[in-house]
Amino acid sequence: MGLKVGVLGATGYTGAELIRYLVNHSGVEISWLTSEKFAGKKISEVFPQFRKFLDIECVNIAKLAGLDEVDVAFSCLPHGTSMHFVSKLLQKGTRVIDFSSDFRIKDVETYERWYKVKHAYRYYIEEAVYGLPEIYREKIRDARLVANPGCFATSVILGLAPLYSRGLIKEDSVIVDSKAGITGAGRAPSLEQHYSECNESVSSYRVEGHRQKPEMEHVLSNLGEGKANVTFVPHTVPISRGILTTIYTRYKEKGAEDGLIDLYNQFYIRDSFVRVYKKDKLPSVKSVRFSNFCDIGLGFQEGSLIAVVALDNLGKGASGQAVQNMNIMFDFPEEEALKSPGIFP
Amino acid sequence: MGLKVGVLGATGYTGAELIRYLVNHSGVEISWLTSEKFAGKKISEVFPQFRKFLDIECVNIAKLAGLDEVDVAFSCLPHGTSMHFVSKLLQKGTRVIDFSSDFRIKDVETYERWYKVKHAYRYYIEEAVYGLPEIYREKIRDARLVANPGCFATSVILGLAPLYSRGLIKEDSVIVDSKAGITGAGRAPSLEQHYSECNESVSSYRVEGHRQKPEMEHVLSNLGEGKANVTFVPHTVPISRGILTTIYTRYKEKGAEDGLIDLYNQFYIRDSFVRVYKKDKLPSVKSVRFSNFCDIGLGFQEGSLIAVVALDNLGKGASGQAVQNMNIMFDFPEEEALKSPGIFP
Amino acid sequence: MGLKVGVLGATGYTGAELIRYLVNHSGVEISWLTSEKFAGKKISEVFPQFRKFLDIECVNIAKLAGLDEVDVAFSCLPHGTSMHFVSKLLQKGTRVIDFSSDFRIKDVETYERWYKVKHAYRYYIEEAVYGLPEIYREKIRDARLVANPGCFATSVILGLAPLYSRGLIKEDSVIVDSKAGITGAGRAPSLEQHYSECNESVSSYRVEGHRQKPEMEHVLSNLGEGKANVTFVPHTVPISRGILTTIYTRYKEKGAEDGLIDLYNQFYIRDSFVRVYKKDKLPSVKSVRFSNFCDIGLGFQEGSLIAVVALDNLGKGASGQAVQNMNIMFDFPEEEALKSPGIFP
Amino acid sequence: MGLKVGVLGATGYTGAELIRYLVNHSGVEISWLTSEKFAGKKISEVFPQFRKFLDIECVNIAKLAGLDEVDVAFSCLPHGTSMHFVSKLLQKGTRVIDFSSDFRIKDVETYERWYKVKHAYRYYIEEAVYGLPEIYREKIRDARLVANPGCFATSVILGLAPLYSRGLIKEDSVIVDSKAGITGAGRAPSLEQHYSECNESVSSYRVEGHRQKPEMEHVLSNLGEGKANVTFVPHTVPISRGILTTIYTRYKEKGAEDGLIDLYNQFYIRDSFVRVYKKDKLPSVKSVRFSNFCDIGLGFQEGSLIAVVALDNLGKGASGQAVQNMNIMFDFPEEEALKSPGIFP
Repeated sequence: MGLKVGVLGATGYTGAELIRYLVNHSGVEISWLTSEKFAGKKISEVFPQFRKFLDIECVNIAKLAGLDEVDVAFSCLPHGTSMHFVSKLLQKGTRVIDFSSDFRIKDVETYERWYKVKHAYRYYIEEAVYGLPEIYREKIRDARLVANPGCFATSVILGLAPLYSRGLIKEDSVIVDSKAGITGAGRAPSLEQHYSECNESVSSYRVEGHRQKPEMEHVLSNLGEGKANVTFVPHTVPISRGILTTIYTRYKEKGAEDGLIDLYNQFYIRDSFVRVYKKDKLPSVKSVRFSNFCDIGLGFQEGSLIAVVALDNLGKGASGQAVQNMNIMFDFPEEEALKSPGIFP
Repeated sequence: MGLKVGVLGATGYTGAELIRYLVNHSGVEISWLTSEKFAGKKISEVFPQFRKFLDIECVNIAKLAGLDEVDVAFSCLPHGTSMHFVSKLLQKGTRVIDFSSDFRIKDVETYERWYKVKHAYRYYIEEAVYGLPEIYREKIRDARLVANPGCFATSVILGLAPLYSRGLIKEDSVIVDSKAGITGAGRAPSLEQHYSECNESVSSYRVEGHRQKPEMEHVLSNLGEGKANVTFVPHTVPISRGILTTIYTRYKEKGAEDGLIDLYNQFYIRDSFVRVYKKDKLPSVKSVRFSNFCDIGLGFQEGSLIAVVALDNLGKGASGQAVQNMNIMFDFPEEEALKSPGIFP
Repeated sequence: MGLKVGVLGATGYTGAELIRYLVNHSGVEISWLTSEKFAGKKISEVFPQFRKFLDIECVNIAKLAGLDEVDVAFSCLPHGTSMHFVSKLLQKGTRVIDFSSDFRIKDVETYERWYKVKHAYRYYIEEAVYGLPEIYREKIRDARLVANPGCFATSVILGLAPLYSRGLIKEDSVIVDSKAGITGAGRAPSLEQHYSECNESVSSYRVEGHRQKPEMEHVLSNLGEGKANVTFVPHTVPISRGILTTIYTRYKEKGAEDGLIDLYNQFYIRDSFVRVYKKDKLPSVKSVRFSNFCDIGLGFQEGSLIAVVALDNLGKGASGQAVQNMNIMFDFPEEEALKSPGIFP
Repeated sequence: MGLKVGVLGATGYTGAELIRYLVNHSGVEISWLTSEKFAGKKISEVFPQFRKFLDIECVNIAKLAGLDEVDVAFSCLPHGTSMHFVSKLLQKGTRVIDFSSDFRIKDVETYERWYKVKHAYRYYIEEAVYGLPEIYREKIRDARLVANPGCFATSVILGLAPLYSRGLIKEDSVIVDSKAGITGAGRAPSLEQHYSECNESVSSYRVEGHRQKPEMEHVLSNLGEGKANVTFVPHTVPISRGILTTIYTRYKEKGAEDGLIDLYNQFYIRDSFVRVYKKDKLPSVKSVRFSNFCDIGLGFQEGSLIAVVALDNLGKGASGQAVQNMNIMFDFPEEEALKSPGIFP
């Protein structure tokens, strides 16, 4: 008898990826899946790749109260909606891993300003643990509510954490330019993600400030002394999955180049899913696709330190990380169901 | 102590995919990998996705004689070259799974005419077993030499086998139009597979006859009574992986439509990796990518039966199928290391 | 003072492509553009590529009656809707080129059966001319209403016309397999054309019969003696633009291969936009993108004649062909605004 | 009788694009094309899109001395090679537009250090004019030798020129992150540009410093007072054509935001091919593909000015710009053959 799992909002891209990991997991069984659009349909009809793997029917979330109790629920619902169902599950005693941003930001006013949503569950914000195992592994272990990090935030925090933790960064010098695949925008049809609109194009968005900025700055600030300040611009590139984040910064001590790769290796020594590259090697999206790895390389250009970070936005950037959190919360080996290399090509 | 495995020509696309399955396999250990281009380099340097999974060094095939004995070797070498190394391994008593076409065709003259290569090992052709488990599972079990099928041939044979085995097809009526991803052409750089040449294009090739035609016609002929005759044209489409094969044929008995899906389901009842679709559903490449599945759907248009077959050319079309053959040969569960759904999106 | 032109439904893909040709045309001026979604916006805001070219505001089609009279109007509206506005314009004396299928099919019952729409303007169907200049150039010259052909139909008719006109085809032997880019499905967002759904995939659709079948069969039947019968299956491939159509047929006289390319060259001798390839050369989508060309090559495989046809679905398959029709109707040189090679890569 | 034109190295991507513009140009005729790989072949065989446009045969560059004299020659040869043929043509009195970097950098030592090539023609460096019309239009008019700018440099200089010319930029604050399509790497097959290697990936390269840095810094330094210092990292994204360059900088006067778009508009008031976007609008690659336009938008994020620049690397980034230079040199209207909007989608 495995761990009982439920998934809210299972028929988007993070849902599909989550189910893929769960059917490969030796210790869990999926009890229920909710979907508004596909309620009443078998998951194997919605996603034909699951034929011969999982045949249960999606139910409408309105029926949540009547569903079997589970040990853990994942919420793949959008922010603003997720908080309501998360709080219902917590009240029943279910532990929850929430993919949305609803419980990531400790300061409610900051949340409300960036997300234009009233937050109704301040008491849960406080106990929520930010689900980045490389930073908060111990807290995750006992958490009732894990706020799964944003995909961009994961790449930026992991790319900068060793530097912030040692206070090596010059104030006001962090510029982050991310390039992200189209799945990042979700599965709901829209003109921007219509094939012929985004294919063969590159564009920037939210140059004036992206919603994942506060969570990056918050976690990085906590690692160091001063307040972290990140200029961050995401870009859309025509790939289905993956993020490449290029981080430009100036560090305080000149001549420190040689030690930096060691510092990164040391910082992530206990972390199976972070791979620091050797000198003169930089990661590309191709090496991490469909995996839970976050690959980091360092380069230098006349006084600037350039960290290049690659991850799969649906893997380490969402569903893979969520399963990693579940493994930690329920004492499975942290790599269970996730120990698979990226797939190339 | 697991089964000892060696791989000839490990640094192409079929090699990378094969290694991915092998590192996920509970019962094998990789003893050696050969590569001409990357001899002396660690496989994790050639393919960064294998960091933390496999670190052994690639050796030049010239040193084959000095390598450890293995229980089974896979050859990912090109035809014409492969036969020489396969025969060396067989002489040492190693069982071999050969990805090339060198031992697929029983009639040596046919082989030499299509491949423009002299065949030096007629005696091994005879004992070679065509590695399509759905048709030849029992023979594969005891084979010393398995000739792993071509990717197009796999899609065409699986799409037509139930019909040929029952003699339902009108003579001379089989037209096959395949659309294949770019990895099918291998990893050696060439103008045709240069990104900007094939991106945003579709083209046909070998309209006068493709080399996998003889193996398709041979296996299909053996299933039925008369000689199978297939008009086959492959096309290149700008996707990395996957084949969609559309088969047009006219069947003998009118009104037989209803029973045909049942016939297919019945034919593949023991086969984990073939999925027959329900009425009015047809597979797409998206549902089988990165998996060992071959999905088949049937449609009808005014007297024509249209079978649509999807598989991943590096999965069921090459490396996945090879691992399936290995599992059969060495009494592993047939699905070991392969039991993973396609990855979407 | 140029020819005055209006465009109904100008903000889809065929509209954008049409405007591109029109702003390059020496003899026309655009009087108005209608758009439901973007009414009130400048066309250069909807499509930034038109900044410095065209700045007029899109108007809602409800205001059609109040718009300036034009010499010719193009309708890029969907079938079922288009007929109503086309008939209004015709009543005002405006000549019309209709991109929709509403006036392509002479037999109303056939139209209504395939398109599930009641046709309210039978009297206009009769006078409508099918706008394929290579077949109906003379009729187009004086037409009040031109029914611009479907993109698939254009490729199939041009690929088969020389054979049908000479009665060279064996009955019941025509199989057509088309591969088309995603713009063919239009600009309205939908799950099927959502980037990550169709990227890296290939799929078939309408295997049971596609709506452009009747117009293909009708025109081809008129060219020859008997009734043309085409088995036709379209496929979707992840390119923005372009169609590759592969036509499989068996011809009556064996040994006729050599003369066939000559036959095609002869048939299209007056046609600037059809290019017949030399022996052993076949066209790809890459060579016709962004142009009004239709390229045709012939191949042979054991008794089968294989014609491969490439065109751009928005060029010769829609907007380019419409401008070609306009040029014929208004005595411009047929190549005006269209005399540009495909763009590579 | 038009201007006589010759092209060195005509069968790469810049050559194909150049020919496309030239066959659309009312005032030129192409006298000869050289190609090493395709010598003896008609250009319409090498590039089927030119059938019905241009049929002349490519000649080997070894025969350059025997070719007809032309008024202007374009060199699409690689750096290091180009200088030798450029100097030969100059000695014959031919005016030359050189696509390579050989004559872009005034300081020979800088050239030799970055390009690892000995420069043999110092005297021509001095008279060469950097072919960026928006900055050097008057000098181009009378130049014998125009050094056509690099594609990245064009985007960076045009994106920063108004700021540098007014001294608005804080020292050491310019970070440039470019995303470029695959044609930028040329047409010679290589593993990096092999379809399945770069498709569905994003990667950075030359983080330690890219060769176009010196030309950017040189031109920008000349516009202002101090020495310009640019941290520049290019990235590869899976599109055939186009560059999006994101420029991050901090400007000296706070509160200057409002005037900056005006400043840009004013700076480029005479320039047909630069389009400055309105507030809150940013360009994407999609709007400039296949055109000679350079689109610029400005955004702001907490003290940072973010300029986003889009151009087609083969258009304004190479062949389009070269034709613009030719138009200036030979008193054609500057827009001749180039006045066409980008093509969408």
